[in-house]
Amino acid sequence: MTRASSFDLVGTVGAARAGVLHLPHGDVPTPAFMPVGTLGTVKGIDPTELRASGATLVLANTYHLWERPGHARVQALGGIQRFMGWDGPILTDSGGYQVFSLKDHLKVTEEGATVRSLLDGTWRHLTPEVAVEIQETLGVDVAMVLDECIEAEASRERVIASTARTTRWLKRALLARRHADRTAMFGIVQGGMFPDLRAEHAEEIASLDLDGYAIGGLSVGEGHDAMVSMIEVAAPRLPADRVRYLMGVGHPNDIVEAIVRGIDLFDCVLPTRMGRHGQAYTWEGRLNLKNKRFQDDAGPLDPGLPESPANRFSRAYLAHLVRCEELLGKRLLTLHNLTFFQEVMRQARAAVVAGDAAGLEDLRRRVKIASSSPGGR
Amino acid sequence: MTRASSFDLVGTVGAARAGVLHLPHGDVPTPAFMPVGTLGTVKGIDPTELRASGATLVLANTYHLWERPGHARVQALGGIQRFMGWDGPILTDSGGYQVFSLKDHLKVTEEGATVRSLLDGTWRHLTPEVAVEIQETLGVDVAMVLDECIEAEASRERVIASTARTTRWLKRALLARRHADRTAMFGIVQGGMFPDLRAEHAEEIASLDLDGYAIGGLSVGEGHDAMVSMIEVAAPRLPADRVRYLMGVGHPNDIVEAIVRGIDLFDCVLPTRMGRHGQAYTWEGRLNLKNKRFQDDAGPLDPGLPESPANRFSRAYLAHLVRCEELLGKRLLTLHNLTFFQEVMRQARAAVVAGDAAGLEDLRRRVKIASSSPGGR
Repeated sequence: MTRASSFDLVGTVGAARAGVLHLPHGDVPTPAFMPVGTLGTVKGIDPTELRASGATLVLANTYHLWERPGHARVQALGGIQRFMGWDGPILTDSGGYQVFSLKDHLKVTEEGATVRSLLDGTWRHLTPEVAVEIQETLGVDVAMVLDECIEAEASRERVIASTARTTRWLKRALLARRHADRTAMFGIVQGGMFPDLRAEHAEEIASLDLDGYAIGGLSVGEGHDAMVSMIEVAAPRLPADRVRYLMGVGHPNDIVEAIVRGIDLFDCVLPTRMGRHGQAYTWEGRLNLKNKRFQDDAGPLDPGLPESPANRFSRAYLAHLVRCEELLGKRLLTLHNLTFFQEVMRQARAAVVAGDAAGLEDLRRRVKIASSSPGGR
Repeated sequence: MTRASSFDLVGTVGAARAGVLHLPHGDVPTPAFMPVGTLGTVKGIDPTELRASGATLVLANTYHLWERPGHARVQALGGIQRFMGWDGPILTDSGGYQVFSLKDHLKVTEEGATVRSLLDGTWRHLTPEVAVEIQETLGVDVAMVLDECIEAEASRERVIASTARTTRWLKRALLARRHADRTAMFGIVQGGMFPDLRAEHAEEIASLDLDGYAIGGLSVGEGHDAMVSMIEVAAPRLPADRVRYLMGVGHPNDIVEAIVRGIDLFDCVLPTRMGRHGQAYTWEGRLNLKNKRFQDDAGPLDPGLPESPANRFSRAYLAHLVRCEELLGKRLLTLHNLTFFQEVMRQARAAVVAGDAAGLEDLRRRVKIASSSPGGR
């Protein structure tokens, strides 16, 4: 069988890795950050701008695309890449996270999840097999398996039962594949906040032959230190020759701390969502453009990021747009944040490729500043 | 005195004119359409895209910029062009239209209009002199005088009193100018829907030495035919060697009918507002992308407008974005509509410059189709 994807390591610094993930629609240099395009669009940003920001892989959402516009329609229109006008690779989350967040509209059995659509009230039955079928029909480069997502504060017993189910669902998903040569599949390690359960589940998932391995169930309010502990437990247990993906994380410092611990792939809504809410990641810190002090600031948003499209405008103008809730403000700050995140990935990769441990340390220090909200600002 | 602007006629077809309006920040080939950038931004569109759409002159709003971010702040930041990142000319409406629409928050006297801000509840006193001062401080290329805007159904007596006041306010505005060499000033013809009063006011305003002459108080629900009648009365009475501006009009067919009657300059919220609401002007008609029939349409939005940035995507994708209320949909349809309006202006100008009466007639026919909402769609 020809695999849809392969992964080459090109360098390491300690546990940190640099590599290339080869996918049907292109190569992804890692570490890589995926902008979130839930409904087949990164909010407000067109594919040309996405490419210019440095993105090489985009995330979309199985459940949401299933509801609108529907996977069969996307297939008839030539597949998700053509539909979005993005000629690069696409990874879809299975939709588990979204479905399981609809607590009052959800029934979960061993078969799968039955969920009542918030759009039209109809019940939809999402199983591991259905999730695979939707993703293969969309024509994505990477499909994520359906996993059971449980509450962050779940008991040990509940986590044990749930990780076992997630493994069973993964095995069903593997059997349901029809286009393994066109769509790669990643499994997901769960295990809550219990180190031994995380370790056990990582080993269980690692024993299965998958194109890549993800760590899920983090960035759900557990805090930076707990998250890092769980990565430290799971990452070393995943196959060294396959890509590793930390789902839904995080601020730039969370990402770099995960890179240092051997993670290759990331997605997060923060750069886009924060941008829409008037916040910018800069090398000086996370700036809230609603703050009065920016109203008369003629300087560029981030002198340390000359490639940012927002730097063509003054902080004062951006602050004005944010105050007036103007679309252009949301868009420029989103573009800026995406460019910032990609620049962090570029610097991390460059340090690892060069074997520059000091450079990686320096980046860890600098992204801590970039991720913090400066006092008095 | 050096004037801030001059106007050269380069061709005519009947009453239709082609020309060049020379302004401090650049030349504007006419007929010209100004995108509306009320708060110093055309909603969702950046200046580079605005330029690419064919725009050469942008409209902003005195009253709104006075409230936010304030004219003194804009001046300190280098003027409105630098503030917006738009290096071309800018015209500001005086804000009269906006102020007079705040009926419950308004007191009007001979001195001016006192209006209670919807933002912070403070009372602001807008006089002809204040309007000039704000606009000169912003550093706009063209300032519009403050005029009294009254209800469309106003009585003859009320219109007579109001046009007289508008003339007195214009004379006060002329006396208040400090930078006539940097900021041009246009007067505004009112007169309601009374042909004789329109004619009289046009002659009165034309007798004053202004950089340009606008026709106001139209596009307020009077209908296409009444609007055209008022233009036919006013336009021929305005100086032939100065630019003529029809405020707030309209659909492409309204614009072309006005061009045929001797108007040079236009602004309207329609291309931007309609775009945000999922409607596209095309050579096939005005399309509502919410319509079911577009959900599976793999074709481009407007095959007749190859330069439209929206044509990189299918109608099906645009329909999806519109249904999901995605920012990218609003932005692409706005860009498309702006490009469409500029293409109409380009074709009108080309026909007039070439002395091509048949071409102009053909355009009149085609924009009627473009402005209509096709049945069964």
